[in-house]
Amino acid sequence: MYVIIVYDVAVERVNKVKKFLRQYLHWVQNSVFEGEITLAEFERIKAGLKEIIDENEDSIVVYKLRSMPKRETIGVEKNPIDDII
Amino acid sequence: MYVIIVYDVAVERVNKVKKFLRQYLHWVQNSVFEGEITLAEFERIKAGLKEIIDENEDSIVVYKLRSMPKRETIGVEKNPIDDII
Repeated sequence: MYVIIVYDVAVERVNKVKKFLRQYLHWVQNSVFEGEITLAEFERIKAGLKEIIDENEDSIVVYKLRSMPKRETIGVEKNPIDDII
Repeated sequence: MYVIIVYDVAVERVNKVKKFLRQYLHWVQNSVFEGEITLAEFERIKAGLKEIIDENEDSIVVYKLRSMPKRETIGVEKNPIDDII
C-alpha cells in the first residue's frame, strides 16, 4: 500500500514524529511523509505514532492509496521523490 | 478529480495561501487541504497559487487522485471531512 501521512502535533513532539516516520517513509516537506509500505509496517507505524503523540491534542491523518499518486509541485521541490525511486 | 494539497510556504504568505485554497477545498489540518474539483478549478488553483507564492522559496505539492482516498485519523480530527459530505 502507498500512504501519505500529514501531521499536526505540538512543537515538543514534532521531532520525535519526524524521526520515527523517517524510518519507514520518504519526507516530502514540512509535516508530510509518503511511501510504499506493507500492511505490517502500517500497523507498526500506527502503533508507534500512538505512543509518541498526545491523542487528545495532536492530529495525524493517513491517506491510504493503492499506489503512488500523480503529483505536481508548484515552487521548490523540497525533497525530490525521484531520488528514492 | 480529487486533490490533496500540502504547502510549505514562508510565514508571511501562509494566510494568503490558506484563504485562497479555502475557496475551493476543505481544510484538513495545519497546511493541508483536500477536495473534489473540476479540471478548470484545478487550473485556476495552480494559477492562483503561483501568483501568491515565491516559486524560488515556497513549495506546494498537489496529489492528484481519481476519487476521495481512504483515510485514518490518529488523535484529534481537526476538521472532520464528514461535515462537508
